[in-house]
Amino acid sequence: MKMLLPAVLVASTLVAGCGDRTQRPPNLIVIFADDLGYGDLSVQGHPTIRTPHLDKMANEGLRFTQFYTGASVCTPSRAAILTGRLPVRSGMADDRVRVIFPPSQGGLPADEVTLAEMLQEAGYATGIIGKWHLGHQEGHLPTDHGFDYYYGIPYSNDMSPATTSWGRAQTYPPLPLMRNAQVIEEEPNQRYITRRYTEEATAFIERHAERPFFLFVPHSMPHIPIFASDAFEGTSARGLYGDVIEELDWSVGEILASVREAQLENNTLVVFTSDNGPWLTVNIAGGSAGLLKDGKGTTWEGGMRVPMIAWWPGTIQPGGVTDALATTMDLFATAAMMADVAAPEDRILDSIDLMPVLEDPDAAVRNTVFYYRGTRLFAVRNGPWKVHYITQSAYVGDAPVVHEAPLLFHLDRDPSERFDVAEDYPDTVAAIGALAQAHRVRLVAAPSQLRIPEWE
Amino acid sequence: MKMLLPAVLVASTLVAGCGDRTQRPPNLIVIFADDLGYGDLSVQGHPTIRTPHLDKMANEGLRFTQFYTGASVCTPSRAAILTGRLPVRSGMADDRVRVIFPPSQGGLPADEVTLAEMLQEAGYATGIIGKWHLGHQEGHLPTDHGFDYYYGIPYSNDMSPATTSWGRAQTYPPLPLMRNAQVIEEEPNQRYITRRYTEEATAFIERHAERPFFLFVPHSMPHIPIFASDAFEGTSARGLYGDVIEELDWSVGEILASVREAQLENNTLVVFTSDNGPWLTVNIAGGSAGLLKDGKGTTWEGGMRVPMIAWWPGTIQPGGVTDALATTMDLFATAAMMADVAAPEDRILDSIDLMPVLEDPDAAVRNTVFYYRGTRLFAVRNGPWKVHYITQSAYVGDAPVVHEAPLLFHLDRDPSERFDVAEDYPDTVAAIGALAQAHRVRLVAAPSQLRIPEWE
Repeated sequence: MKMLLPAVLVASTLVAGCGDRTQRPPNLIVIFADDLGYGDLSVQGHPTIRTPHLDKMANEGLRFTQFYTGASVCTPSRAAILTGRLPVRSGMADDRVRVIFPPSQGGLPADEVTLAEMLQEAGYATGIIGKWHLGHQEGHLPTDHGFDYYYGIPYSNDMSPATTSWGRAQTYPPLPLMRNAQVIEEEPNQRYITRRYTEEATAFIERHAERPFFLFVPHSMPHIPIFASDAFEGTSARGLYGDVIEELDWSVGEILASVREAQLENNTLVVFTSDNGPWLTVNIAGGSAGLLKDGKGTTWEGGMRVPMIAWWPGTIQPGGVTDALATTMDLFATAAMMADVAAPEDRILDSIDLMPVLEDPDAAVRNTVFYYRGTRLFAVRNGPWKVHYITQSAYVGDAPVVHEAPLLFHLDRDPSERFDVAEDYPDTVAAIGALAQAHRVRLVAAPSQLRIPEWE
Repeated sequence: MKMLLPAVLVASTLVAGCGDRTQRPPNLIVIFADDLGYGDLSVQGHPTIRTPHLDKMANEGLRFTQFYTGASVCTPSRAAILTGRLPVRSGMADDRVRVIFPPSQGGLPADEVTLAEMLQEAGYATGIIGKWHLGHQEGHLPTDHGFDYYYGIPYSNDMSPATTSWGRAQTYPPLPLMRNAQVIEEEPNQRYITRRYTEEATAFIERHAERPFFLFVPHSMPHIPIFASDAFEGTSARGLYGDVIEELDWSVGEILASVREAQLENNTLVVFTSDNGPWLTVNIAGGSAGLLKDGKGTTWEGGMRVPMIAWWPGTIQPGGVTDALATTMDLFATAAMMADVAAPEDRILDSIDLMPVLEDPDAAVRNTVFYYRGTRLFAVRNGPWKVHYITQSAYVGDAPVVHEAPLLFHLDRDPSERFDVAEDYPDTVAAIGALAQAHRVRLVAAPSQLRIPEWE
């Protein structure tokens, strides 16, 4: 990982003064929607969902068109964003049990270094408001992984005997709402969860106006079951799903307003993105990947390419759009650069500093994206080209299809993955095959944390 | 048709002075792309096509999310926008021959009143720069239908023995470029056609800075075969199709700059839209309907819902987005209102004045859209609900499917038409069925102009 200081940090180091807010290391706020699709915002082309705050954030910031999650379901995607590593490296990906369930005793291993841990050691205040989903037993909680403060539902909001009939829900405990390591409420009314998270997030910002902070806001919404508060329910033409997105949009507005209120806007990078694509199999309660193919759970573009808006007045030029390849894992190296700390050097990171792109939308920092489903490499993107080795739709009962002759798509020209051109570009397929093979042979998969105890 | 004067015209009438540009009737410019899809602009969510001029036009104007063409292929769509009537009423729709071909002797009947004719009679200068496609024999040309000036290729740019192997192309004459009623060039180099249209359009605006005008700019692009000029070819990440759209975007920028240059921006309504959805069957040379289903040739949303941006500084508030239902046919009544002239009263118009929406994005003027394929009513939208009676994909060989039990979709909640909810809302199906039946029994279809001479 390159660790050169970007110009803005060099400058601030040269003239640094104690207690000067503009000279302290920048704050980082990451707002992480759950199952929000590529096509679910006005600024991404949705006809009937209105997201004026996110649209404004994009107009004032930088919008990424080719931004990827580390996995297409919750638990591994969250491991990826917080460790800067492919989830298969930390044991947070599994081929049979795809996420952490309430009976699980596993979680993010203690020797993983999270973004929070790294920034906490650098003197940052660290908070997470929302859905953790990386283990909820002692030793696996956010407060065990570098967060000073936690408030939220520790796993998916459907993992409750009250709100779902999925899986073994009848054996689940009541859905917990936690503060730090304590359950403070059972079965919280989910209509108010976005509002409560927002109030907690803005309070965190207010509390830390005098000290560098990292605030992670992984919303529970729009993961099913979806809920909106009185102020939003029934207001969107898109129906309840639209109400939920519009409340999330309001929440983003509140958070940005808090940053401005604290006069921190020139010293805070705010990022908005999603953990994976839309959950198409829940029908009208799920979102849209726009022109991208398929959704959550798959390695088609709709499963892993998500909206991404970065906002940092004074550092990011307003209204930019970038085609630079980037992933949620890149936030790790970006944060290390911002905080001027060394990222861990005793392990492989899959993270590349995005500061060059934030400062110049035409810059490129990453050439390759690896698309995993569980522990298996399903596809590889290099530049505009994507090769699929295995494909599988999100629909229950669909089996994986192993392609003896891999599929090749040119994603810039064919973003909807309609036209397999492998026969026309055998050299490209071969070159990406070599990349994939080099990756495979070096990859060390950690033992699964998702089957503790053993789970069938 | 309501003919109440909008406030802005009442005001201008009250204080009208001769020779005062701001008091003269407003100009109208309609820019009409060919086969541009709902998802093909940056502002509509395309990841790799950049349309900064159209995005800016939207930021300064009003973007429609639910704007429809009068048909899903060229000839009937053009008949609709210019007559304000469903094309079946003028004989410009046919179930076997879907558009005008070079051997055709037919065309828009002389007794149809076009938007140009209506405005010409009101003292407007009228010009059309681009693709006409409503008949190219004497008596059917633009200059026979109210346009003072014509410059362009009179039908589709693939109807040439040189550029296509479709249909009976070998019997076609060389592709003509016309000025008024004369062929001035054969087989024009299509790489420069967008640029030449743009130069003609801006020259028309300059020539008419002192007189009210209606300028119709139906581009030949991005209909196949697609071409871009030296300045654009090879510049878009989307490939040649992207180059073409980005050149159209440049063209829009040039036209708006000409309007400003002539100091007419406060007295000119500029509209940008498309004749139908993307031609998906031409693969990578065709566009994208974004999250909408299917494309050109069909009555799924992707075939008939198109981008629409209206720009009129001082009258249209900047940055608005409207979910109001509207169609290309509505420009007829809107123009009548703007020019303070009476629309023809001796015929049925399918046109509703859009001035209320231009002045207030929350206004609604239209409840119903009829989706025809050829002369048959395939679907009806009423409010957010759409009923399909017949469906057919755009793919060659696909036969129409008549639904004994009509399909029902809620387009605001389910814009991709994924979830048929007819069984849940029988009363809605019945109510729209009554609307459809009332429409059918009153509809008088004119004899087809597309099979003159008889054509198999």
